[in-house]
Amino acid sequence: MRNYNESYTGKINRKLAKKLRIVEVAAGREQADLVLKNASYVNVFSNQICQGDIAVAEGLIVGLGRYAGKEEVDVTGKIVLPGFIDAHIHLESSLVSPKEFAKAVLPHGTTTVVTDPHEIANVMGTDGIEYMLQATEGLPVDVRFMLPSCVPSTPMDESGAVLDYRSIDSFYDHPRVQGLAEMMNYPGVIGGDPQVIEKIVAAQAHHKKIDGHAPGLVGNDLNAYVAAGVYSDHECSELDDAIAKLERGQFIMIREGTAARNLKALLPLLTPQYAERCMFCCDDKHPSDLLNEGHIDDLVKRAIAAGVDPIIAVKVACHHAARYYLLNNRGAIAPGYLADFMVIDSFESFSIEKVFKRGELMYDGRAVKDFPAPEIDPYLVKRAHDTFHVASLTGSDFMDSRPRGVIGIVPGEIVTKDCGYAKEIDPAADILKIAVIERHKNTRHIGIGYLKGYGLKSGAVATSISHDSHNIIVVGASEEEMAQAANRVVENHGGIVVCQKGAVAAEVVLSIAGIMSDAPLQQVNEQLEHAKEIAFTLGVNRKIDPFMTLSFMSLPVIPTLRLTTRGIIDVGSQQYI
Amino acid sequence: MRNYNESYTGKINRKLAKKLRIVEVAAGREQADLVLKNASYVNVFSNQICQGDIAVAEGLIVGLGRYAGKEEVDVTGKIVLPGFIDAHIHLESSLVSPKEFAKAVLPHGTTTVVTDPHEIANVMGTDGIEYMLQATEGLPVDVRFMLPSCVPSTPMDESGAVLDYRSIDSFYDHPRVQGLAEMMNYPGVIGGDPQVIEKIVAAQAHHKKIDGHAPGLVGNDLNAYVAAGVYSDHECSELDDAIAKLERGQFIMIREGTAARNLKALLPLLTPQYAERCMFCCDDKHPSDLLNEGHIDDLVKRAIAAGVDPIIAVKVACHHAARYYLLNNRGAIAPGYLADFMVIDSFESFSIEKVFKRGELMYDGRAVKDFPAPEIDPYLVKRAHDTFHVASLTGSDFMDSRPRGVIGIVPGEIVTKDCGYAKEIDPAADILKIAVIERHKNTRHIGIGYLKGYGLKSGAVATSISHDSHNIIVVGASEEEMAQAANRVVENHGGIVVCQKGAVAAEVVLSIAGIMSDAPLQQVNEQLEHAKEIAFTLGVNRKIDPFMTLSFMSLPVIPTLRLTTRGIIDVGSQQYI
Repeated sequence: MRNYNESYTGKINRKLAKKLRIVEVAAGREQADLVLKNASYVNVFSNQICQGDIAVAEGLIVGLGRYAGKEEVDVTGKIVLPGFIDAHIHLESSLVSPKEFAKAVLPHGTTTVVTDPHEIANVMGTDGIEYMLQATEGLPVDVRFMLPSCVPSTPMDESGAVLDYRSIDSFYDHPRVQGLAEMMNYPGVIGGDPQVIEKIVAAQAHHKKIDGHAPGLVGNDLNAYVAAGVYSDHECSELDDAIAKLERGQFIMIREGTAARNLKALLPLLTPQYAERCMFCCDDKHPSDLLNEGHIDDLVKRAIAAGVDPIIAVKVACHHAARYYLLNNRGAIAPGYLADFMVIDSFESFSIEKVFKRGELMYDGRAVKDFPAPEIDPYLVKRAHDTFHVASLTGSDFMDSRPRGVIGIVPGEIVTKDCGYAKEIDPAADILKIAVIERHKNTRHIGIGYLKGYGLKSGAVATSISHDSHNIIVVGASEEEMAQAANRVVENHGGIVVCQKGAVAAEVVLSIAGIMSDAPLQQVNEQLEHAKEIAFTLGVNRKIDPFMTLSFMSLPVIPTLRLTTRGIIDVGSQQYI
Repeated sequence: MRNYNESYTGKINRKLAKKLRIVEVAAGREQADLVLKNASYVNVFSNQICQGDIAVAEGLIVGLGRYAGKEEVDVTGKIVLPGFIDAHIHLESSLVSPKEFAKAVLPHGTTTVVTDPHEIANVMGTDGIEYMLQATEGLPVDVRFMLPSCVPSTPMDESGAVLDYRSIDSFYDHPRVQGLAEMMNYPGVIGGDPQVIEKIVAAQAHHKKIDGHAPGLVGNDLNAYVAAGVYSDHECSELDDAIAKLERGQFIMIREGTAARNLKALLPLLTPQYAERCMFCCDDKHPSDLLNEGHIDDLVKRAIAAGVDPIIAVKVACHHAARYYLLNNRGAIAPGYLADFMVIDSFESFSIEKVFKRGELMYDGRAVKDFPAPEIDPYLVKRAHDTFHVASLTGSDFMDSRPRGVIGIVPGEIVTKDCGYAKEIDPAADILKIAVIERHKNTRHIGIGYLKGYGLKSGAVATSISHDSHNIIVVGASEEEMAQAANRVVENHGGIVVCQKGAVAAEVVLSIAGIMSDAPLQQVNEQLEHAKEIAFTLGVNRKIDPFMTLSFMSLPVIPTLRLTTRGIIDVGSQQYI
């Protein structure tokens, strides 16, 4: 453990002792802690498969060649790869705690992720960032942070916090903070909004990276965005878009997540001409996708299956992200690098047989080795489990005599349609009532509108996952059941609730900030799939995800209509209707 | 200028104002300071030649495409390249001040160099490092520093200072210090010498780079050296050596300097398989070579002439060094990057027509634009010009009744031969007397020996350039003239003196720490060439460099015999003979 009272001399001495042992082992004068015998390993520097023993000491790879170890693992005929790095993820999207996330991705060879705690920061502000830092300390998947750049996403949002550059500034000193996360407010950057640009300036003053988010930006606007200091983009869904950004110096994060799947369109980047500037990321990955598809390994497998050179695919999955984020001792199998690696059978079948983290076998092909949950300040634990400040609701809170706009769902898309106005619920015509309930500060702000295309015939569905402010969204065939579902979400300190006939028919408790569960991923996934099934039986259109669809209904930056805590907004004109 | 009293808020505001203007220009709302119209430029990201205008504001490239500028330069038909970076140089080897060095290399497209002030540090210790930092502040060639790791080179050396990790530690906070310079004491690293390894540990604690220097190291010893934390090497003279290091993760600096020329042997590295891990450097470059050959441009030209893809050659000459040293805003033509670039006619003839530094035309094809000399603390100026502490010498100081070893010169090589013993000077038999005079602390230590193969028939030659401690080396056909030449070096506060018939026949004054001149490069070169010619007329073998040959005679790490201030040493056995 780190000694917080240690002097600089003490620190140097401590590191020296470790380094001296590394040199002893590397030079062959002392036995290694672990040796992978007869390895074929991907050499990311010479772009080939090399052969030899891999010696490990003090959690680092110390030598390649011929070594003896206290423990020896023969890997003849197998291929050893560096551990994978997810260059951009919101850990909250897994709906589980970081510990449970780590357990889920270790079997997929992930040993490092770079997270943007943007969701929890919208709920808990800087306490949310600190909570995630503590909840990830010492995990066997290294979690590095990019600080949220856009909380709230827009001034229309009523989130739990407003973060300017000063609010996040002290976090740059944390050894696991790499920079400023996706600068989604690209109009603010291009338009020269000082409050947006000073966030970039501050990140640069700390010599940190700034990630981008600017779908389809071109020409001089793109120049302005890049010149401002935004170094990467993960929003490219078309090749031309990606090449325009890459040519201007941005690194491209190729994304395959639950909502967006860009690998196929961007496959031509995975060639010698462009691959050096590319990484992989998932951005958002829901429980069922993590369980069914995997993680970064899924991108690597798909890329190889599509004909990409396996060594290029592997480098994009680890080495390039490490260099981009200045994580200089990972993403390669070489002396001095972290002993983060996996053993696979072959590039063709790509079965991950073993995963090592800092030289420790964390996944043996069957199970993940147990590890302790990080300690979190009791204050923060209490704070994270007490983020709902909403007085009890009744059906009358959702009554409204005025006509309100009707948001039309487009199955398979995140955009919505403008479906005119309605005055009351009419399930037969597929007109449901939808409401967004401000839940951070008990303001009793409740935005009301109507929803078409959801399909519910009776009951109500409520969720506290609603991007980006994570207020409560509820949709229902009756105001009473809407109130009941929303009250139950508050009672649970967050999550998803399906009500029918005045009773809770299904629920998923997400009591960490209302967006994550303390339960294991498998269990959360089962609850979620069960709740979805109940929602479908209540009539919800099977072509949509009953909860994810709702969670985007309050994000006032995506066309056409959205519902905020203050009413329905026309995103194009930015006017309430 | 930087305002040293500025608060953090003040700093952010200042940078914000500049950034807002950059965004205005990039977005096309405001005129650029400079536009290169119709440029064909090397795109280091997409590995091709791109077309478009290059817009500059606030010293940065802000946009690529179509722009209008207050000043416009049409470069139709020309090629624009990023400014070159020398990844490893000892500026002192140019024998001139940093300002004069900058004037000499700007016409060659060099806009950044990474220097190891190892020579001056051996004379002046940390004051030497500080002198060089001040002497390079604000120059139109950016000078970044690696801190000397091996002062003195060995305990046998009597240098002006002994630098341990604590001595250099505070320099890591300087914004132009990138790390720890070439770790020449590789036996100390591999052997686990704590005082050597703690220097590496301290550099890592500051998140800095550590350069290497380990010719021919292989196998587990190389593993130990790399695992200890040494990230690069510039001593590869054979391809196998370079590939072994590259495969273990070291970056390879391909060197063409005055003493060592490695490009030809390492050309196979300049291919897509390896080039990403390579840079160019010159290490040491004497005045005549700078004037006759050029600088990094010479490597680029030679590489292209040898068939290397010009885009690879250019990337190795700029972009790769920038990434290695984390100089993230240089080495490319893209928004946000420094406007450091050159205009050439074509890759074939490679004539450099214009060189811009931070958007300012510094070389127009004919002359270098004048710029002010950096201000240096008067204390340091005085200290640098007063580094000789030697009482006046007479012929009797060089008299010796004992037999002494004879060092045999091998023309064209840096190694020497053991030529037995001698008791007195015998010019007819080419036996001259050689002495090393401790000159830092007036210890009156004078090592005496004999030299064969130099060829001097009469007179004496003295120089205060003597690696690495820069004591005075003098060789002569008479003890009286040896004393006279050495005294004249002291009188001049350093340099080279050729005496004949009791008079000074030629001299080069190097009064900055006894190793650099305040005069322009051209003038120093003329003096030097004149002095060489005089030395030749006195009989010095024309197959050797009269002064450079002497300057290595006291470096007790290169076989076979060397002369220190305490006598002749057999390098192999490390015993005085």
